[in-house]
Amino acid sequence: MLDSLFHASVPPYLQGRVAPGETVTLRLRADSELELGGVFLRTAPEGEQVMTPARLESREGCCQWWEVAVELSVPRLGYRFLVQTSQGPWWLSAAGVTRHTPTDATDFRLVPAHPGPRWVPESVFYQIFPDRFAVGNPENRVREGEYLLDGEPVLARRWEEPPTPGAGAREFYGGDLPGITSRLDHLQELGVNALYLNPIFTAPSNHKYDVADYENVDLRLGGNRALVDLRRALQERGMRLVLDVVPNHCGVENPWFQRAQADPDSPEAGFFTFRKHPHDYECWLGHRSLPRLDYRNPLLLERMVSGQEAVLRRWLRPPFSLDGWRLDVANMLARQGLSQMGHKVGRAIRRAIKAENPEAWILGEHFFDGTAHLQGEELDGVMNYRGFMIPLWQWLVGSDLAGFEGRPWGDRTFLPTASLAAQWTAFRAAVPESLALQNMNLLGSHDTPRVLSMAGGDRRLVQVAAAILFTWPGTPCLFYGDEVGLGGGGAPDSRLPMPWEPVRWDLQTLDSFRRLCRLRRRHEALSRGAVQVLLAEGGTLAFLRESPEERIVVVACRVGASREGQGLPVRAGGISDGTRFRGALGGGALRVQGGRLDGVPAAPGAEIWIEERG
Amino acid sequence: MLDSLFHASVPPYLQGRVAPGETVTLRLRADSELELGGVFLRTAPEGEQVMTPARLESREGCCQWWEVAVELSVPRLGYRFLVQTSQGPWWLSAAGVTRHTPTDATDFRLVPAHPGPRWVPESVFYQIFPDRFAVGNPENRVREGEYLLDGEPVLARRWEEPPTPGAGAREFYGGDLPGITSRLDHLQELGVNALYLNPIFTAPSNHKYDVADYENVDLRLGGNRALVDLRRALQERGMRLVLDVVPNHCGVENPWFQRAQADPDSPEAGFFTFRKHPHDYECWLGHRSLPRLDYRNPLLLERMVSGQEAVLRRWLRPPFSLDGWRLDVANMLARQGLSQMGHKVGRAIRRAIKAENPEAWILGEHFFDGTAHLQGEELDGVMNYRGFMIPLWQWLVGSDLAGFEGRPWGDRTFLPTASLAAQWTAFRAAVPESLALQNMNLLGSHDTPRVLSMAGGDRRLVQVAAAILFTWPGTPCLFYGDEVGLGGGGAPDSRLPMPWEPVRWDLQTLDSFRRLCRLRRRHEALSRGAVQVLLAEGGTLAFLRESPEERIVVVACRVGASREGQGLPVRAGGISDGTRFRGALGGGALRVQGGRLDGVPAAPGAEIWIEERG
Repeated sequence: MLDSLFHASVPPYLQGRVAPGETVTLRLRADSELELGGVFLRTAPEGEQVMTPARLESREGCCQWWEVAVELSVPRLGYRFLVQTSQGPWWLSAAGVTRHTPTDATDFRLVPAHPGPRWVPESVFYQIFPDRFAVGNPENRVREGEYLLDGEPVLARRWEEPPTPGAGAREFYGGDLPGITSRLDHLQELGVNALYLNPIFTAPSNHKYDVADYENVDLRLGGNRALVDLRRALQERGMRLVLDVVPNHCGVENPWFQRAQADPDSPEAGFFTFRKHPHDYECWLGHRSLPRLDYRNPLLLERMVSGQEAVLRRWLRPPFSLDGWRLDVANMLARQGLSQMGHKVGRAIRRAIKAENPEAWILGEHFFDGTAHLQGEELDGVMNYRGFMIPLWQWLVGSDLAGFEGRPWGDRTFLPTASLAAQWTAFRAAVPESLALQNMNLLGSHDTPRVLSMAGGDRRLVQVAAAILFTWPGTPCLFYGDEVGLGGGGAPDSRLPMPWEPVRWDLQTLDSFRRLCRLRRRHEALSRGAVQVLLAEGGTLAFLRESPEERIVVVACRVGASREGQGLPVRAGGISDGTRFRGALGGGALRVQGGRLDGVPAAPGAEIWIEERG
Repeated sequence: MLDSLFHASVPPYLQGRVAPGETVTLRLRADSELELGGVFLRTAPEGEQVMTPARLESREGCCQWWEVAVELSVPRLGYRFLVQTSQGPWWLSAAGVTRHTPTDATDFRLVPAHPGPRWVPESVFYQIFPDRFAVGNPENRVREGEYLLDGEPVLARRWEEPPTPGAGAREFYGGDLPGITSRLDHLQELGVNALYLNPIFTAPSNHKYDVADYENVDLRLGGNRALVDLRRALQERGMRLVLDVVPNHCGVENPWFQRAQADPDSPEAGFFTFRKHPHDYECWLGHRSLPRLDYRNPLLLERMVSGQEAVLRRWLRPPFSLDGWRLDVANMLARQGLSQMGHKVGRAIRRAIKAENPEAWILGEHFFDGTAHLQGEELDGVMNYRGFMIPLWQWLVGSDLAGFEGRPWGDRTFLPTASLAAQWTAFRAAVPESLALQNMNLLGSHDTPRVLSMAGGDRRLVQVAAAILFTWPGTPCLFYGDEVGLGGGGAPDSRLPMPWEPVRWDLQTLDSFRRLCRLRRRHEALSRGAVQVLLAEGGTLAFLRESPEERIVVVACRVGASREGQGLPVRAGGISDGTRFRGALGGGALRVQGGRLDGVPAAPGAEIWIEERG
């Protein structure tokens, strides 16, 4: 019964917002039958362990609740519980229940100051690659051969044409910001309420990560004026807007780099690392078209980050009023060999952005482990590839996104369900839970194959992945086109133009995503609730999301898995017999008996069971 | 066979000393029968994942060896291995083998610069509480009623008298530094080669943590002259000397505090935190006699840490030439509520001490999790209570040192063997292995009950604990008197005067410790070797220590455990059939057959099996 020990580290009513000096009541839940000699809260605010006895506050249904008050006397308070049982003392930390004393690294953590904008977990994001979403003003479009990129002429494609293998960043379809503005009805009907756009600042490529001018939106996307129009249209609909910025490197056409190359004594020469001026310089992953910015230079830091007119600050102000930034390759920022300034620059970025707008979101691209930047002093969240998406696909379809997992024996190997839960838990346990809720969860992006392709074209698997995306802690994000069943493997196929003829849409998928968007936005348990894994074995993953008013049980089975009607154990989640649930995805009504939710289908698929109260 | 995946993160020949820019060859060992599709080294020196293929270098006996070279291009390099198997990809990190991707927190780590003094792992320490070890010059002794402490007269005791309950810090037995100098033969015969002394600077109490004068050794211990004599005598014997310093607080008699109280405008007033001058001030854990030093004050930092004549620096210079410091309550240093400067002051301490002598040891007292201070920038090691001693006693005798584990059901509960291994592994995995070797492991100290008391008077259990102390990674330390079987529970009983009449000695225990000291100092596998847990179940703990020239298998059984002659599985440690071992504690000779070391006694006790080569 030790698996019934549970603590919601960010009670929804707190919203993660506790001011220093305030006192917070923390609660621990356990099965009512579990015999406990005592429960202690363990903190070490000034390095010395403090054990504060909790008191048995109530017994309800199959639960006992213990409560303990703690003062937030330090900037970040780590804590865990010690529970006395007849099998000895056990610890409950963010990593789960252990018999041995864990290190402090997996403590629950209260982060009082700016734990991330409150609106983020309430949002459903939609990512747009602007050249491929919608054409607003055809006059904006890049003309065939209009200029050279990497020495070769740019290409103009018709919307229906397939991308040309090898054309890479030179190929344009003519999508623009007015196109996005014209399609907001579609997005609103889908149910998303926040946009994340791939880069739109002036740059010669179609992806625009080779920024030539951080001060202006590319005229081929409609320019600054079009951004203001989009912003206004979004505001009218109560929608948020987050842009992609590239602080790590720029394009060779950027005047900073031009001046740096032209004159080694120019102020901008220090923005870059020349091994030998002017042609041998540090660049991003060896791409000579993307010279790397060197944050050892204070003037660069001022221009990009901290000055009044710094790139990261000015766009947050009217008339653009961005709601936040997605920082490109945040994992690599300001890290060059022996000069490892990533955390220092990360803190400067936070100070600058929050000074401009405390409710602006700081989202880092982090394809790997971003938890070191998620301690409350740098990022609000990361694109959650490693703590969500990649293990999800490894579990669901045995994917090998990185190519290193190896198929020497030919077959796919699936990540075991317990390992999936272990990885998700490890990545969440490493950060304050209030920040885990700020991560952007996703199933695919411009940098990966599309959802449908990952799922091998199997719609049921897309549904399983989508049900988890919308219910696991973190803020969900859809990649444009996934909602209508657009396919495509890795780039350029993952960046196909959005089909706008409804005859080309998969209406079943669209309906499913619409339902999930609404469900997510309607239920606080999904946006801010605590999470507890109820089952992670044999191909079935089940977890509970819980807020003071709601309880929701999510059950996901992958293909090939079955549980042969054993029923789902829910008692460890404090769910008493007689509790009733209704399936939000068509699963009917169920009742808990003998600690189990009987009748939960064991077939491949997913269901979201919502408690019926009153 | 996945448990055969093994990597020695600090190959002994490296000594943990790799200069930035150097290339290191890393090796992974696996069972020869384990089918591997490939092995990759995973690093992310600049944030981006780099997967470097290892190559199968050799097959020997029951092992296959993979090798990969890596350049130390950054100040601290984290790395782990990905291993392709027919059961999918597995990761090997410092935390062990996992199917899911771990966070970077458990990466192996190479820390090139100053990973801790080389002499430390080669040492066996002996801790002395000076008032209780030996009388050198009776003239030094404190006289009965000579002065008041906390308003009560000090007490002078005869060596044979038991301590007085409640007398606390007021009670003196007259031990002094000349006494220590006069007893070095005993220590050298025992086999220790380094001393750690509890505080000796001028202070009114017997424990001298209430420092009145950081500039002078207490005259009652013999003064500075006696320290110089001791230093010289130790040097002649090739022995090291580490003193205890109290940077966190001082005593009320300290002139800093006297001036601060007398004059709120004095420079020293800023050394303390007065809530209301002069009588309401911050103090250590509420003890008004120990006002807390406030490191927000730069002058204090200069006087204690960083100035040319700072306390932490001057004693490292001749004629005192200390080999290092034990920093009292390092866990609490410079941590006051919202001002959490522990890491900043920790880094300043390292800079100051290493500037004076790069080979000086920085040992922190850390009763809890000190791993955050063991990343290469602050401490070299901690008194390893939590990562070694406390779980050892919880496992061996079901101790409850902290009093929170609870005995509501009356019985002791023993930490399961797997949990013991898990805790030790978690604490080691959180720090670079080169620093784990610098931790001071111990079985007891002036702050805990004595070994014999912990073991409930059972000598066999003392032997088990001692065998592990001398063979687990870290630098062993004995508490004075334990070697002759001195007993005593918590203070004051743990600080009984050392008995010098051999008739009062437990010669069997003394012989055992002598043997262990010699064994430890003779075998590089024990001081610097890699460690691999071979078995941790059912009351038996077995592990392998390994250096290029030696392999040593340690087997420890706790009371009540038995394995009924099943033999010890050693093949996962790369030990082939036919390998011969001899027991260093009298266990005879054994030979590996069928992957097992048969004939290992399953009875309570411990044996150290040393491979016989050639």
